[in-house]
Amino acid sequence: MDNVPAVPETFVHELRVRYAECDPQNIVFNANYLVYFDVAFTELWRAAVGPWQDMVARGIDAVVAEANVRFRAPARFDDVLALHAHVARLGTTSMLTEIDVMRDGELLVAGRLQHVCVKTATWGKTPIPGWVRDGLRRFAAPDAESAT
Amino acid sequence: MDNVPAVPETFVHELRVRYAECDPQNIVFNANYLVYFDVAFTELWRAAVGPWQDMVARGIDAVVAEANVRFRAPARFDDVLALHAHVARLGTTSMLTEIDVMRDGELLVAGRLQHVCVKTATWGKTPIPGWVRDGLRRFAAPDAESAT
Amino acid sequence: MDNVPAVPETFVHELRVRYAECDPQNIVFNANYLVYFDVAFTELWRAAVGPWQDMVARGIDAVVAEANVRFRAPARFDDVLALHAHVARLGTTSMLTEIDVMRDGELLVAGRLQHVCVKTATWGKTPIPGWVRDGLRRFAAPDAESAT
Amino acid sequence: MDNVPAVPETFVHELRVRYAECDPQNIVFNANYLVYFDVAFTELWRAAVGPWQDMVARGIDAVVAEANVRFRAPARFDDVLALHAHVARLGTTSMLTEIDVMRDGELLVAGRLQHVCVKTATWGKTPIPGWVRDGLRRFAAPDAESAT
Repeated sequence: MDNVPAVPETFVHELRVRYAECDPQNIVFNANYLVYFDVAFTELWRAAVGPWQDMVARGIDAVVAEANVRFRAPARFDDVLALHAHVARLGTTSMLTEIDVMRDGELLVAGRLQHVCVKTATWGKTPIPGWVRDGLRRFAAPDAESAT
Repeated sequence: MDNVPAVPETFVHELRVRYAECDPQNIVFNANYLVYFDVAFTELWRAAVGPWQDMVARGIDAVVAEANVRFRAPARFDDVLALHAHVARLGTTSMLTEIDVMRDGELLVAGRLQHVCVKTATWGKTPIPGWVRDGLRRFAAPDAESAT
Repeated sequence: MDNVPAVPETFVHELRVRYAECDPQNIVFNANYLVYFDVAFTELWRAAVGPWQDMVARGIDAVVAEANVRFRAPARFDDVLALHAHVARLGTTSMLTEIDVMRDGELLVAGRLQHVCVKTATWGKTPIPGWVRDGLRRFAAPDAESAT
Repeated sequence: MDNVPAVPETFVHELRVRYAECDPQNIVFNANYLVYFDVAFTELWRAAVGPWQDMVARGIDAVVAEANVRFRAPARFDDVLALHAHVARLGTTSMLTEIDVMRDGELLVAGRLQHVCVKTATWGKTPIPGWVRDGLRRFAAPDAESAT
């Protein structure tokens, strides 16, 4: 029974909605969720691998290839949001991160970000380095590396 | 030959990338494409139906239910982008708009926005009014109202 | 010795610079400091008076009449900034807040915001209510109410 | 009578307020005026000197040293704003630009931006090059170069 897969750990980052992020409908303007996702992804990275800039200094960066956002309920000014993030797929050069935006246990917005690993010298696609992959496994689903 | 479907008209809105919209990678930060899409959608609406606020004054608004963005190539500061938008699906209460971000004929980013029509009094879902639907047909694909 | 003026208390709010807030010069884009100031002012208000929305619910709001920002040194992605705020002048209907943006003890940006108190019903100028004034004194300079 | 100073030319740039730039007070959020100023300044530069990036490619850039914004009346979603800009002071290494945000002839917001010319190699202060100065004179007040 020693090969039972570990329960994947979900990374949680909290932030408070700023007034400037809300629109005349009195809700967070949709584009700002992509900003929130970027913040959560950066913090997941810090916990898993280290500060983003340390990776860039080693010649590796990542760019967003696709983003998907489903809006279920609006967040409002001054709300404290919990962004729950985990790595759903960890491929050779790309990875898929799922981020749920929760408020008091209610799912408001569900996001998916596909990142591709690139070399800063050429901006060309490159395999995710081992030291990055090792760190990310902490927040990866058990089948993240076999999924297609 | 009188029942040949009309060629759908694509709405095009041009804008120039602002410095504030670019990030340290020297490219447009991903969230700003959702702002661009909102601008293009507002302008398509103006051409098809009229100013957005006139609809709101009549008690009807629309909210984004889902957004999808695929990034193929980056846009940069001072680029002039052409946003090509058309209505891919025009349902009873919701609609799907596809927006291609082009620069000199090259597709940089492809977006899809699903909007749901709501009453401003209750924020509850409501059928797209006839006068809105009639206007939107100008930029709708021939099968937009039969698609599922 | 009982009339020695109390040492004014400075409110401090910390935040981390987001990637989306930085520009191709690799520094925080200037407009984002006004967003930071608004966040710091909101948090000062929470500590001094209570949540901003509670005041709005009582029919009182405040609008910015003037903003001044002096840039001495740039902040960068991932920097943790400490915003030091205090009320420099507390007039009948308006107030002046000074906000210093510090990083590791270095002053990067110095801001001044003049707010005017308004009634939400008419957006007309109105005296700062006593219960607001009482709260703000905590972070006000000793001569804030006599200054002109 | 041939030495009567030329009437200074004011540069005007128009833009339409985006929904994402408005806040729950249903007005343009204050920070976005600094974005508008940057857009107007970039366009003044294009008309006076050429594209900003051409200057950067020659090793010269400019940074904002101070910004001042006075808010007189709010702009709203979908408003078309005319930004009237002129160079009030053209010093050795710095310049002051005044920008009035007008709507239908009404002054809404008055801004002042002080820029400092820098070398991109060192980010150190450097004199405004002659070819930049020559272009900017077109939009400069008659006493812009003698003012202190």
